[in-house]
Amino acid sequence: MSEQIYIGVDLGGTNIKVGICDVEGKLLHTYEGPTGNENGADFVLDRIAEYVRALVRESAIEWEQVAGIGAGIAGFLDIPEGVIKLSPNLGWRNVPVKKILEEKLGKQVVIDNDANVAALGEAWSGAGAGIPNIVCYTLGTGVGGGIIVGGRLYQGYNGMAGELGHMTVVPDLEAIACGCGRMGCLETVSSATGIIRMANDAVERGDATVLASVEKMTAKDVFDAAKADDEVALRIIQRAAFYLGKSMSLVSVVINPQRFIIGGGVSRAGDILFDMIRENFSKLAPERAQEGVDIVPATLGNDAGVVGAAGLILRG
Amino acid sequence: MSEQIYIGVDLGGTNIKVGICDVEGKLLHTYEGPTGNENGADFVLDRIAEYVRALVRESAIEWEQVAGIGAGIAGFLDIPEGVIKLSPNLGWRNVPVKKILEEKLGKQVVIDNDANVAALGEAWSGAGAGIPNIVCYTLGTGVGGGIIVGGRLYQGYNGMAGELGHMTVVPDLEAIACGCGRMGCLETVSSATGIIRMANDAVERGDATVLASVEKMTAKDVFDAAKADDEVALRIIQRAAFYLGKSMSLVSVVINPQRFIIGGGVSRAGDILFDMIRENFSKLAPERAQEGVDIVPATLGNDAGVVGAAGLILRG
Repeated sequence: MSEQIYIGVDLGGTNIKVGICDVEGKLLHTYEGPTGNENGADFVLDRIAEYVRALVRESAIEWEQVAGIGAGIAGFLDIPEGVIKLSPNLGWRNVPVKKILEEKLGKQVVIDNDANVAALGEAWSGAGAGIPNIVCYTLGTGVGGGIIVGGRLYQGYNGMAGELGHMTVVPDLEAIACGCGRMGCLETVSSATGIIRMANDAVERGDATVLASVEKMTAKDVFDAAKADDEVALRIIQRAAFYLGKSMSLVSVVINPQRFIIGGGVSRAGDILFDMIRENFSKLAPERAQEGVDIVPATLGNDAGVVGAAGLILRG
Repeated sequence: MSEQIYIGVDLGGTNIKVGICDVEGKLLHTYEGPTGNENGADFVLDRIAEYVRALVRESAIEWEQVAGIGAGIAGFLDIPEGVIKLSPNLGWRNVPVKKILEEKLGKQVVIDNDANVAALGEAWSGAGAGIPNIVCYTLGTGVGGGIIVGGRLYQGYNGMAGELGHMTVVPDLEAIACGCGRMGCLETVSSATGIIRMANDAVERGDATVLASVEKMTAKDVFDAAKADDEVALRIIQRAAFYLGKSMSLVSVVINPQRFIIGGGVSRAGDILFDMIRENFSKLAPERAQEGVDIVPATLGNDAGVVGAAGLILRG
């Protein structure tokens, strides 16, 4: 029999990306097309099936080689049942994705949330390849996370494992409300949204910073200013990095991973951010929990989602 | 062939306890005798071998039935190598326990730290039997912990997984130094030592409390006063319970266990403590990480160590 392959689906609000991986997690072929969510969930699920079949056909792979299909989706999921309970960005409620796609494709389908899937992608063939115990942070609009134990994704009892953006790390006196309804979550300071908020606050307060002349603030503006030694911008990045380091120091005495991987748009800031995170982790975590432990950037970029989704069949 | 049995050794500073478990973790026979540490490590290891052989002989079990021997030891261990790097309470340094006992007994030997072993005992046949994902807290002189993932003990990369007493949860403004050299660890407020310290501080400050008349403060004195509605004692217990709840809320978004088990001397305080911990966890953790999750007392008492040590062979 020919070698088995694994298909990953990265279901976004604008585009659907599908990809084929080999057993090592190497991305062999990809296809990307519009989601067309304005036509409803049934239409989108049809489209996923269509994209998957087209990709396999055009890749000169036999349908029999397909071991299964994984899909990464942002939202609240019932992972074992494969149901999207609520996807705010798609506007879906109670859609049994697994059941519908299995009927359409005749293959096993597994779903998981986007941050978990990105973590699994990095663990399989990205920055964590060959390392069994990993914690990933995805720094974007929010802060996502994923936990890899023994090379496999670990979801926890209610699928809440790795919800690192909702670690309460900011002390009450400085805490602001998080989208989740609680106060002081990591996400309120270490996401792009958090960084932008801190920058806008500083400008409004009248702090002396080049950011005062920015029209529509982005996290990149803040990093660029920090790289140019703007003190206010440096203080903001330092604060985002401090709470990431603090969160990692807590994680290190709960599950003591060998490697922390940081991905997502904010992580593209590069050394300035990573150096600060490493410095804070090193100050805050117990020495023994740091020995041989490193903090590295994700390497798969936008492919992490599709690779990790493919990996769900093997390592979910 | 007769059924396999598993031997556990709980190596304490005063006594050595050995026990025989069946494959379900049921404790069939135990033997306890003095450690005799004043005679040195070699003597103690000889004694362990002697106690193990005597226990098997007197239990009418064939030596061939012994699948292996696990030992729980307080201190810094190299778990894969089976070496005690430093045991402050025994005064041992770099003792290759695994190698020596394997030579003496001709069976596989596995060691792990006492809090991990107690967690494994509870998971195997105590308060966590049948539950695959568990986090245990042991509240004694310090605060220990153990993480059970998929029914197995999870040590982490440097054996630091489950060092829950060293989660930094107390905000800087109220933090005091921990024995580990860092500030604000859970252990500084939620251990017996922490509770006694807070009580002595209150008495010294002149707070109006029945504790003022206690000669040598114990954690039990503080719980007894709290049960009699002494407001100062209640405030102290509430503080210990608050930080336990906070620590659990952090753990719940890292690994989202199904059950928290609390053991150790302090946990004998019973409902007054558990009710407060549950109340704080329920306020602080995200709702979805609480669904179906419970916080329960350990049930094996002093046997947890010997049962969990026996379990190391199967589930370490």
